[in-house]
Amino acid sequence: MTTHWSELYAERTQGLTGSAIRELLKLTQNPEVISFGGGMPAPEMFPLHEVEQACCRVLATNGPAALQYGATEGYPPLRDMIARHTARYGIRVKPNNVLITTGSQQALDLIAKLFIDEGDTVIVDAPTYLGALQSFNVFRPDYASIPMDSCGIQVDALKSVLRARPKFMYLLPNFQNPTGLTMSLERRKAVVKLAAASGVPIVEDDPYGQLRYEGEHLPSLALLDSETHAAGRKNGEQLGNVIYLSTFSKTLAPGLRLGWIIAPTEVITRLVQLKQGADLHTSTFAQAVAYEVARGGFLDQHIRALRQEYRRRRDVMLAALADEFPPDWGVTWTHPQGGLFLWVCLPAGMDSQTLLAAALKQNVAFVPGNSFFAPDYPRAEANRYMRLNFSYAQPDQIREGIRRLARAVGEALGAGVAYAAGVA
Amino acid sequence: MTTHWSELYAERTQGLTGSAIRELLKLTQNPEVISFGGGMPAPEMFPLHEVEQACCRVLATNGPAALQYGATEGYPPLRDMIARHTARYGIRVKPNNVLITTGSQQALDLIAKLFIDEGDTVIVDAPTYLGALQSFNVFRPDYASIPMDSCGIQVDALKSVLRARPKFMYLLPNFQNPTGLTMSLERRKAVVKLAAASGVPIVEDDPYGQLRYEGEHLPSLALLDSETHAAGRKNGEQLGNVIYLSTFSKTLAPGLRLGWIIAPTEVITRLVQLKQGADLHTSTFAQAVAYEVARGGFLDQHIRALRQEYRRRRDVMLAALADEFPPDWGVTWTHPQGGLFLWVCLPAGMDSQTLLAAALKQNVAFVPGNSFFAPDYPRAEANRYMRLNFSYAQPDQIREGIRRLARAVGEALGAGVAYAAGVA
Repeated sequence: MTTHWSELYAERTQGLTGSAIRELLKLTQNPEVISFGGGMPAPEMFPLHEVEQACCRVLATNGPAALQYGATEGYPPLRDMIARHTARYGIRVKPNNVLITTGSQQALDLIAKLFIDEGDTVIVDAPTYLGALQSFNVFRPDYASIPMDSCGIQVDALKSVLRARPKFMYLLPNFQNPTGLTMSLERRKAVVKLAAASGVPIVEDDPYGQLRYEGEHLPSLALLDSETHAAGRKNGEQLGNVIYLSTFSKTLAPGLRLGWIIAPTEVITRLVQLKQGADLHTSTFAQAVAYEVARGGFLDQHIRALRQEYRRRRDVMLAALADEFPPDWGVTWTHPQGGLFLWVCLPAGMDSQTLLAAALKQNVAFVPGNSFFAPDYPRAEANRYMRLNFSYAQPDQIREGIRRLARAVGEALGAGVAYAAGVA
Repeated sequence: MTTHWSELYAERTQGLTGSAIRELLKLTQNPEVISFGGGMPAPEMFPLHEVEQACCRVLATNGPAALQYGATEGYPPLRDMIARHTARYGIRVKPNNVLITTGSQQALDLIAKLFIDEGDTVIVDAPTYLGALQSFNVFRPDYASIPMDSCGIQVDALKSVLRARPKFMYLLPNFQNPTGLTMSLERRKAVVKLAAASGVPIVEDDPYGQLRYEGEHLPSLALLDSETHAAGRKNGEQLGNVIYLSTFSKTLAPGLRLGWIIAPTEVITRLVQLKQGADLHTSTFAQAVAYEVARGGFLDQHIRALRQEYRRRRDVMLAALADEFPPDWGVTWTHPQGGLFLWVCLPAGMDSQTLLAAALKQNVAFVPGNSFFAPDYPRAEANRYMRLNFSYAQPDQIREGIRRLARAVGEALGAGVAYAAGVA
C-alpha cells in the first residue's frame, strides 16, 4: 500500500505555504542580484574576531558545560545579563522573568502555542511581521488587522476590536517590520492604557530597538505598562500585561539563533513547559559564546558601530529613492528612524508581485507587501506595497539597486498608462 | 484591570506540566548527588580541542556566512554529509531528503504539528521516550500504547490498533529510551510489513544507533521499508513509509542542538514550512562547526572511543546491580546492547516515585518509570519501573550510586513487608 502522506496531514497545515521571504533568500545567492529582500544584517560587520575569542574562552574555561544539555530556561549568566540590560531601560526584572529562545521566531511559536485556540482573535498591525503570521497561522486564529498611521496602530480601530475579547495584540513599536514606522509616545501610552483596561495582553516584539539612527529613545510598552501597574503587582513583580521579545539577531549575529522573552514568571513557567517539547533548550554553546562576546561592554560598542553604518545605508537609500523616483510617479515611502526596512507605496492599481517579476529581470529583489498582511485585510490594497531592506546591501549596491528598481517601476508605469493618469 | 493570564491560555496547554527529567536535571547540579537521571553524555568525553579547531576554521574560512541567516532546510554541506552517511547504511537518500532540526526534539515537535489533530490516534511503545510524549501532547492525540517484550513492540497488539487508522507509530528500535531494548530483526521486518500494508507511517527515532556495545548492527526500519518498496517509488525515491530521526547529541555534543529528519521530499517540504514558523532555521554556526568536526573521519573515530567508554560504564552498572540487589528482592533489569539506559522493574506494588524521594535522601537520582508511559497505560503497572542512565556518571560513581540505590530499595522493602512477601 502506498503511503498517502497528504491524507495524513493535520487540518491546521492545509493552508500553509512557503514564505515569500524564504524563496527570496534563495535568489540572493545569485551574486548578480542586489537584494533588498531578506532582513539580513551586514555580514561584513559581524565581529568575527570577538566571536572567535569567545569560542576559545568558553571552551577553555567552561567547555564541557557549554557542550552539554542545559536548562530549558537558558544559560544562567545570559539570563542574568539580559535582566540587567532590561533594567537599564527602567524595567526591573529578575532572571526568572527571562526565557532564552532559539531566535525571536521561537518566541512567537511558543506564544502561539500558549494562547491560540482555533478561532481565537489575535490583533495585529496591518501590515505586520510575516514570520509572526506564519507562527500564529499554525494554530488557526482569526485576525483583526488594525491599520497604522505614521504614529503606529490606530487607537480608534483598536478600541472597537478589543470588545471581541481577543487573546492578545501583537505589536512592533520600534521601526516596525515591514514599515519602519515608530509608535509615538502618546500612542504608546494610549495603547498600554487600553490594553490594561480591557485585560488584553500585548506581545511587544522589539528586535530593532537598539538600532535607532535619529530621534530620542522611547520607552517600551513593557516599561509604560509596568509604571502604570507597579503598585498592584504581587511578589513585587513589575511586569503586568506585556510580554516583551527581543533578540541578538540584529545586534550580534542571526546565525547563533538567540532571542529572549521577558514576561511575568507565571507566563514564563508555562512557556518553559512548551519549550521543553519544542527543542529542550537553546544551544548552550551559542548562549555561552554570545554571553562572552557581549559582556564587558563590547556589544554596546559594536551596536554603536552598527548604528553608524546602518544610518549611512538608510540615508543612501532615501537619497537614491528621491533621485530615481520622480514625484509625478506617485510612489511614496517611509522615513524610518531606525531598524532595517523602509516601506514603499506604489500608485493605486499597481501590483508589487507583478513588479517583483520585472525587478528580478533587472537583478534586484524586494519583498512584495501582501505577505505582511493577515488574511482579513483587503488584497488589492495589500498588493500596493513593497518592503526594502537597507542593512544588507552596501551603499554602492543600494544606489545601483534603487536605479534598477526605478527602471522596473518606470517600465510598469509606461506599460500601464492608467497608473500615471490616476496619479497626474 | 489585572491580567488573568490563566484564563487566556489555549485549551491544549491545560494538562501540561513540567517533566520529571527536567526537575531532576536541576538536582544534578548538586555535586553530592550521583545522577542516573538525565540522558546526558559523559562531559569528559567531549572533543573540546576538535570543536575549538572547528570554530576557528569556520570563522576563518566562512565566518560571515556562518553567522548569517541560513536556509531553513539546513547548511548544505551538512545535509550532504548526512545523506552520504545514511547511504553508508544502505538507504540511498539525496540531500533534499534531509532536514536539519534544532535537536531531535524539534523533529518531534514538527512531526506532531504536521500530523496530529486533536483526537487522532498515535501508536507508541509502552514505555516510550517521555520527550516525544511532551511534544505530541501539545496537539492532544489519543494514544495507543503497545507493550514491548524483549524483542520490541508486540506485533499482535500492534495489529489490533492499526485498524483504527492511527496517524503514525513512533518507535525507537535501537537501545530504546527508556528500556534499553533492541527490536529484533524478525520483529523489524514484521513491523515494517504491517505498517506498509496498513498505510500507517513509522516515525523511527534513532539517537543511539551508533552506540552499540555488543551484537551485530541491525538494519533500520527505514532501510527495510525502502528495500521492500524501492521498485514502486516515484522520482527514484527510495523512501516510502518511514520518517527517520537522528541527532548529534549523543555522538558529538547535545549543547549544539543538532538533529535531523530523513523523509520523502514531499514530507520534508511540509516540515520545512512548519520549521520556518518554529525557529526560521537551526543555528548556522552550530551546523558549520559540527560539519567541520565530523568531516575527514574524526567523528567516526570519536564514536569508537565513546562506544568503548560507555560499554565499560554499562558493564560496571550491570555488575553493581548484580552485586547489590540480591535475587530474593525480586528486582530485575534489562541488559542493553547499546545506548545510554537500562530499565529496572521493582517488585509489584512498589512505587518508584516514592522510592525516588528515599533515593534522593541517599544522594542518588533516577527517573521514575511512570513518566515514560502515555496516559492510556495502567498507572499501577507504570509506577513499578525506573530508568537508570549509565553514560554520565563515572565508573566509581556508578558503583557508589548503585550501592546507595540498593540501600533505598532495601529500606523500602524492609518497611513494606507486603512487597517482600509478594516476592518470596
